[in-house]
Amino acid sequence: MRCHHICKLPGRVMGIRLLRFSSVVIFVLLLVAGALMALLPNIKDDKMPNLRREPKSQSQSALDSFTLVMQTYNRTDLLLKLLNHYQAIPHLHKVVVVWNNVGEKTPEEMWNSLGPHPVPVVFKVQTVNRMRNRLQIFPELETKAVLMMDDDTLISAYDLAFAFSVWQQFPDQIVGFVPRKHVSTSSGIYSYGSFELQTPGFGNGDQYSMVLIGAAFFHSGYLELFQKQPDAVHTLIDETQNCDDIVMNFLVAKHTGKPSGVFVKPVDIRNLEKETNSGYSGMWHRAEHLLQRSYCLNKLVNIYNSMPLKYSNIMISQFGFPNYANHKNKM
Amino acid sequence: MRCHHICKLPGRVMGIRLLRFSSVVIFVLLLVAGALMALLPNIKDDKMPNLRREPKSQSQSALDSFTLVMQTYNRTDLLLKLLNHYQAIPHLHKVVVVWNNVGEKTPEEMWNSLGPHPVPVVFKVQTVNRMRNRLQIFPELETKAVLMMDDDTLISAYDLAFAFSVWQQFPDQIVGFVPRKHVSTSSGIYSYGSFELQTPGFGNGDQYSMVLIGAAFFHSGYLELFQKQPDAVHTLIDETQNCDDIVMNFLVAKHTGKPSGVFVKPVDIRNLEKETNSGYSGMWHRAEHLLQRSYCLNKLVNIYNSMPLKYSNIMISQFGFPNYANHKNKM
Repeated sequence: MRCHHICKLPGRVMGIRLLRFSSVVIFVLLLVAGALMALLPNIKDDKMPNLRREPKSQSQSALDSFTLVMQTYNRTDLLLKLLNHYQAIPHLHKVVVVWNNVGEKTPEEMWNSLGPHPVPVVFKVQTVNRMRNRLQIFPELETKAVLMMDDDTLISAYDLAFAFSVWQQFPDQIVGFVPRKHVSTSSGIYSYGSFELQTPGFGNGDQYSMVLIGAAFFHSGYLELFQKQPDAVHTLIDETQNCDDIVMNFLVAKHTGKPSGVFVKPVDIRNLEKETNSGYSGMWHRAEHLLQRSYCLNKLVNIYNSMPLKYSNIMISQFGFPNYANHKNKM
Repeated sequence: MRCHHICKLPGRVMGIRLLRFSSVVIFVLLLVAGALMALLPNIKDDKMPNLRREPKSQSQSALDSFTLVMQTYNRTDLLLKLLNHYQAIPHLHKVVVVWNNVGEKTPEEMWNSLGPHPVPVVFKVQTVNRMRNRLQIFPELETKAVLMMDDDTLISAYDLAFAFSVWQQFPDQIVGFVPRKHVSTSSGIYSYGSFELQTPGFGNGDQYSMVLIGAAFFHSGYLELFQKQPDAVHTLIDETQNCDDIVMNFLVAKHTGKPSGVFVKPVDIRNLEKETNSGYSGMWHRAEHLLQRSYCLNKLVNIYNSMPLKYSNIMISQFGFPNYANHKNKM
């Protein structure tokens, strides 16, 4: 190739060209490396590894923590008691209080005056007192996991931390503390099963086919799925002010083809409803409550044209806790 | 087209042609249907649905039943006692007795003279008394699931039936009744953990990282995986006459990236070794037994250049059995 005057300084030209070339190569390599790293599969996906994690700082990863969603009606004293308890649960990201006391001011001012608090608490004021308000897709919800709790249920932090770790191993199921079942009858009509009072009819022991969402972890994606359900389903819940949890179990069972729930046996679970000053004692005391749930089962089977609920007899407890020898046997 | 004399009988010709044509069409359709059915995904794959099955007839599907593999040495009286117990376990397909009494006649004649038996029992005569003989790929093994039992362990049929149903939900893990753990130390040297005597060091309660194969269900595919392991691994087992179960747990953990085992808490598990006439009391009474297992852990980490074992604190029990209220709480 034709050489110009700079040929007289071959070393210097080569040097500059080499430098430019090297810079470009390094730059390209960095770009490629960056792109590769971004494309690497994110191991922290929805199927979390099962190791117990040490408590993290407040800025917890949205994959490693959960949002507590607690709907409340006419039991603000219990709500506040429970908030003080639950605000410090390990791996809690945020609390969403679904305020069903229509027209009544939330305790937000009082809450703020008693800060600081371990996690943010958001009060979502509702315009209608609906059971299914808690199943809305709240923009504040950043985590994959939702912990849904009734406003009269107290569960120990140990139980919740363990159940959360279990949910991380079964993220597509409802992992919770309150199992229930349906039973088939020869007439083909279903009944909401009250455990030892009815048997699913096969094998040894009992079975459950639902885990109630008033004390359970489940994937926030199911909230979106719930919203997409036929109007008839939403109407059913509104008419009965009941059965939102039965619907959620139907959804999950249909979606996964598996039992909708995984039952974690609680060590310490308490119902505080007797401790409220409001005198309000909860929907499940209504005379028609259980009959409504049987009604809902059959209505839903009709709407979906199938019975998707599946039985399970898996009961999960925590190995070596609270009694470090709870796994021992006499062998 | 040119017509021949048969044109004069158009209906008849058409009839024959139509008949031939129809036959060909039907035949082809049948072929296609047959091919399609063969290609349809087999829903009864390794991930079994979790429904409890009613007891089947003796010709059980190889997917719906398991093979009991029991290795025996110097405890034929216990073996025969256990065979009478285990031969009638629900979902049992066949029994393979790994006869480690080298040079000694098997009790096959006596067994046959006391027939008929619920399932076939095969006596596999061994030429060398090796611990890992039971991990061979026996041609008689037709099922996906293996139930491996020590020849001195008695577990109730209820426990086995339940654990089998649990294995069907976790077919890539060792589902069994005897959990153990390893512990890390600051020196990086591992120790075989004797439960309450050592702690894995994090969280509440205890953890296990192995489920022993002497009382467990696992997928028969792991036998093939075992055979493919480096010679050093087989040599380790032969030298110690120990640790085959630790190796299996390493395999499973490496293969799945999950904890190798799922612990099912047995209701009724008994060790019969004191009941033998032979006076032989089992390998685990040797003075060096536990130390050997710690030794094996570190040797295997060295061979595999990693510690693949993962901790779990999941303890599974059967819902509503034996006590139909075992899931109740005081809420």
